[in-house]
Amino acid sequence: MKKSLGAKTIMYPTPVLLVGSYDRDGRTNVMTAAWGGICCSKPPCVYVSLRKATYSYSNLMERRAYTISVPSVDLVAEADYFGTASGRDEDKLARAGLTAVRSELVDAPYIAECPLVLECRLVHAIELGLHTQFVGEVLDVKADEGVLDARGHLSIERVRPFLYAPPDRAYYGVGDMLGGAWDIGKRIAETDEQA
Amino acid sequence: MKKSLGAKTIMYPTPVLLVGSYDRDGRTNVMTAAWGGICCSKPPCVYVSLRKATYSYSNLMERRAYTISVPSVDLVAEADYFGTASGRDEDKLARAGLTAVRSELVDAPYIAECPLVLECRLVHAIELGLHTQFVGEVLDVKADEGVLDARGHLSIERVRPFLYAPPDRAYYGVGDMLGGAWDIGKRIAETDEQA
Repeated sequence: MKKSLGAKTIMYPTPVLLVGSYDRDGRTNVMTAAWGGICCSKPPCVYVSLRKATYSYSNLMERRAYTISVPSVDLVAEADYFGTASGRDEDKLARAGLTAVRSELVDAPYIAECPLVLECRLVHAIELGLHTQFVGEVLDVKADEGVLDARGHLSIERVRPFLYAPPDRAYYGVGDMLGGAWDIGKRIAETDEQA
Repeated sequence: MKKSLGAKTIMYPTPVLLVGSYDRDGRTNVMTAAWGGICCSKPPCVYVSLRKATYSYSNLMERRAYTISVPSVDLVAEADYFGTASGRDEDKLARAGLTAVRSELVDAPYIAECPLVLECRLVHAIELGLHTQFVGEVLDVKADEGVLDARGHLSIERVRPFLYAPPDRAYYGVGDMLGGAWDIGKRIAETDEQA
């Protein structure tokens, strides 16, 4: 028997994404979004959902571009701070001592200290209510050499990203590898139907 | 210096969500989606992105409803299997020995053995390319009593969800708590700007 918790935004896990943008004067801003993810494979699209009240909202509307920098666990305090302060009032990257890099592909900056970044061209801004969903086509993904394995493949164990747990209001690291996709489920595919 | 990996669907972490639906004949289907997340706080909305080729796609279009069941690490093999087989060909829940429960709020079933479920009314089907994004308004979230803490709050450490790492093609558990939101970043908010 399950207990009703009401109509709430509860889901595990949600990512911690640092959204980079320029304002109309070319000033860098960064904010943290947990309402974000991958939403299409071809063309490769991601989204972040932002409230109209955020400074980033008008930046994305105006510049039609944004970046996503994926922070490692070393940057959990910075990511939390970027989600609580507004770029209207202060230079958040400067206060955190982090470095903005101008993307050569889109009109937005990413964060040098993050091991993984996505450069996105805005393709849809979909009004859903309190949040507007900014769907971006991924024009390139860039990663630090140090988070690639010997074959040149990206490795989550080297990136060391973290996640946000909405109802717990806390950040968590990534734990142990549980199994390979298209692999660990084979034993069930090979059993007989039980009904 | 960052290395270009190309225009790809790479992001950490993505969730592992079991999408429940009925087909036109009332048969239960379930599929696994990692392209999913929270996209609006008011009204509370989530989404899953599905390819037109999936059996679930037509179910969601027809029934205008779906559920999301969040599996615990005990169900990683089942979740992987649900993502590789098609409900057109077999009764996936029966083969996995899991139980469908008819939602009383939306025209879709959820999985009894999952500790956390969301019941969603379809509000938008947004064509993005290979994937269509199904935005659902969350009408209720339900959880097993056993994953609530002493105060009746949901706990990620009790739910024990897992995540999918797209480029690694592997599932990972949730690791250690790193800090509280609106808390661990305070030390940065209180420092002077460094630029």
